[in-house]
Amino acid sequence: MTDFAATKTRFHLPDGVIYLDGNSLGPLPKDAPARMDRVMRDEWGELLITGWNKAGWMAQPARVGDRIARLIGAEPGSVVMGDTLSIKVYQALASALDLAVTDRKVILSDSGNFPSDLYMAEGLIRSLDRGYELRVVTPEDIEANITDDIAVTLITEVDYRTGRLHDMNRLTAKAHAHGVVTVWDLAHTAGATQVELAACQADFAVGCTYKYLNGGPGAPAFIYVAPRHADRVRPALSGWLGHDAPFAFEQSYRPGAGIERMRVGTPPVLALAALESALDVWDETDMATIRARSQQLTALFIEQVERRCPMLELATPRDPRERGSQVSFRFENGYAAMQALIARGVIGDFRAPDIMRFGFTPLYIDDQDVIRAAEILQDVMDNKLWDHPDYMTRQAVT
Amino acid sequence: MTDFAATKTRFHLPDGVIYLDGNSLGPLPKDAPARMDRVMRDEWGELLITGWNKAGWMAQPARVGDRIARLIGAEPGSVVMGDTLSIKVYQALASALDLAVTDRKVILSDSGNFPSDLYMAEGLIRSLDRGYELRVVTPEDIEANITDDIAVTLITEVDYRTGRLHDMNRLTAKAHAHGVVTVWDLAHTAGATQVELAACQADFAVGCTYKYLNGGPGAPAFIYVAPRHADRVRPALSGWLGHDAPFAFEQSYRPGAGIERMRVGTPPVLALAALESALDVWDETDMATIRARSQQLTALFIEQVERRCPMLELATPRDPRERGSQVSFRFENGYAAMQALIARGVIGDFRAPDIMRFGFTPLYIDDQDVIRAAEILQDVMDNKLWDHPDYMTRQAVT
Repeated sequence: MTDFAATKTRFHLPDGVIYLDGNSLGPLPKDAPARMDRVMRDEWGELLITGWNKAGWMAQPARVGDRIARLIGAEPGSVVMGDTLSIKVYQALASALDLAVTDRKVILSDSGNFPSDLYMAEGLIRSLDRGYELRVVTPEDIEANITDDIAVTLITEVDYRTGRLHDMNRLTAKAHAHGVVTVWDLAHTAGATQVELAACQADFAVGCTYKYLNGGPGAPAFIYVAPRHADRVRPALSGWLGHDAPFAFEQSYRPGAGIERMRVGTPPVLALAALESALDVWDETDMATIRARSQQLTALFIEQVERRCPMLELATPRDPRERGSQVSFRFENGYAAMQALIARGVIGDFRAPDIMRFGFTPLYIDDQDVIRAAEILQDVMDNKLWDHPDYMTRQAVT
Repeated sequence: MTDFAATKTRFHLPDGVIYLDGNSLGPLPKDAPARMDRVMRDEWGELLITGWNKAGWMAQPARVGDRIARLIGAEPGSVVMGDTLSIKVYQALASALDLAVTDRKVILSDSGNFPSDLYMAEGLIRSLDRGYELRVVTPEDIEANITDDIAVTLITEVDYRTGRLHDMNRLTAKAHAHGVVTVWDLAHTAGATQVELAACQADFAVGCTYKYLNGGPGAPAFIYVAPRHADRVRPALSGWLGHDAPFAFEQSYRPGAGIERMRVGTPPVLALAALESALDVWDETDMATIRARSQQLTALFIEQVERRCPMLELATPRDPRERGSQVSFRFENGYAAMQALIARGVIGDFRAPDIMRFGFTPLYIDDQDVIRAAEILQDVMDNKLWDHPDYMTRQAVT
């Protein structure tokens, strides 16, 4: 059991705000500023260069990786932190292609994948210049397209627009039956749904930590390599901290043991400090509990909104087993409606062309928040509050 | 003129410490914890997702890049922040190879380059699999080896062990005369020596911000692309924030305008906040002043140590025009001697096999510090204080 009333008090949530955008950027853990201050003053300030050893900065990427491993069903020692998710996608895909059947040239993805994953794949394919093809099908068609000509699948488990959840177990099993190597993007999975990387024998996985894990804006990414592969993969991004002996300053690269070789440059110590505060809250729960509660919250929101706002079209699967921890509705004036909502304290976000997106995070969202958000959404819709010039001009948001 | 007594007060320097390792990790700017606290509480905490626009997070990599551009003689709008230096080396080298004469296959570097640069080049060469060769010569031989068969030079301006400084003007001019594209690593240049990227027509440059710039452990890196190339380069690491319209979520990559295409993933907002505090101190000076003062400090240290410690062999060029902002001495028991020094409050560092390395940073090191450090070093050497079991076991340090 998790005391969600207690976890809610661990976050700073501005007065009058119902924050349904934790699927984009999680809120500030209340302990994070004090921890950051300690790391800055007591570690950086006092220890200076000796912090790499004395404060354990050098081991931080693996130590934090292990805390995340527990949340994604990964083996201890199989996850390491660093860089951004886009870089980790590149690293995982390059390594996966190295392990793939030699004469296969197709990287299979779907149109529900986050665009940056597709962009990074494009860049890698162009660099490699070996005739690789990025084949992008609809999410519904992905399973049928896992065939004997596929080298690697590059799939985001939860669709960032609709919240549709792929069946990682089934897709991974089918991929392996066809000799396909799998790369899973867990951006909307980590801290949102229950995934068991080890049990389903996933090959590679990557994810970010600023969404459901609440690590802060631009928090570092993670990469998972199945232990059966970890000593075989050849890093494309072969940086010194992935070297077997970084401080020997040898002239040639020798990959470090296991997941350590997926490290690249100097670790982002300050950013990892903020993330560690966020992970302290995660220590109080487990993903089975989170998943069950998330399904309740999303079901409640769907039920409330469909009853109150018949003009909104549900874009998220109705079956709770088939969705992540977000709910999306289509509405042609969705951008303006979301601005009207935000002005009234309900923060979700918008994804082109017409998706209003709401994230549900059991650590700090409760039934009352869900019902109140639906009431305010009803007010916006019933009274066409979105039809206001202030809400029409689009700005960039993530 | 710069008031160096005033800039010294802007840093936290622990009592009893003379910090001569700012070439590895700069000290904490006193204002940085408060700024970080504001960014965490007032921006992340209060603005949440809207911070990307309202707090200017999205524009931060270019805004901070411009502040660094001034310190390296680069054009406004030619520098952008993100990732680690190793990633930026990969990105610059991949783009440089794209611009290079097609049938040339040699990447020229030298043995004084930081190993991670060589490792990243190795990884890229292996991925590309197009017959590229990494040719590593001695620093003394680099100029003679810039010939018509070289595609790209990948050179660190200041040798991380000896402090030897390459003549960027002369080498770049020779490279261009032979149709060679240049990639400069400014890790020990930015904030240390006076470099004029625009004036010497450098093609690409990369650097880190945790050394002389004092951005904090794991602070983000920067990349420079000459404006004449910036709209032509094709990014190998084609992430969404380098896309021309990141928030259109198109399925295919289109590079953004100019240097923006060198962005990859979500920017490290918290780490950049710490760096911005450090750059506030840099606003009070200019690199010509810093360079002149640095040459005085290093000359004083060489004079003091050579007079006091005849058993130490100078590894750094005696001519101030040929060295960066560090001084290195060779000593066969250098590791133990450095530990003995650190135990007595003089923090430098050691690089295998026998280099004792000292960085000099005018912003917070003065003549008194230099003389006192030399006195303590003399005590360590005269009394063989290094010959102590506590100082013999090596630990990893950066």
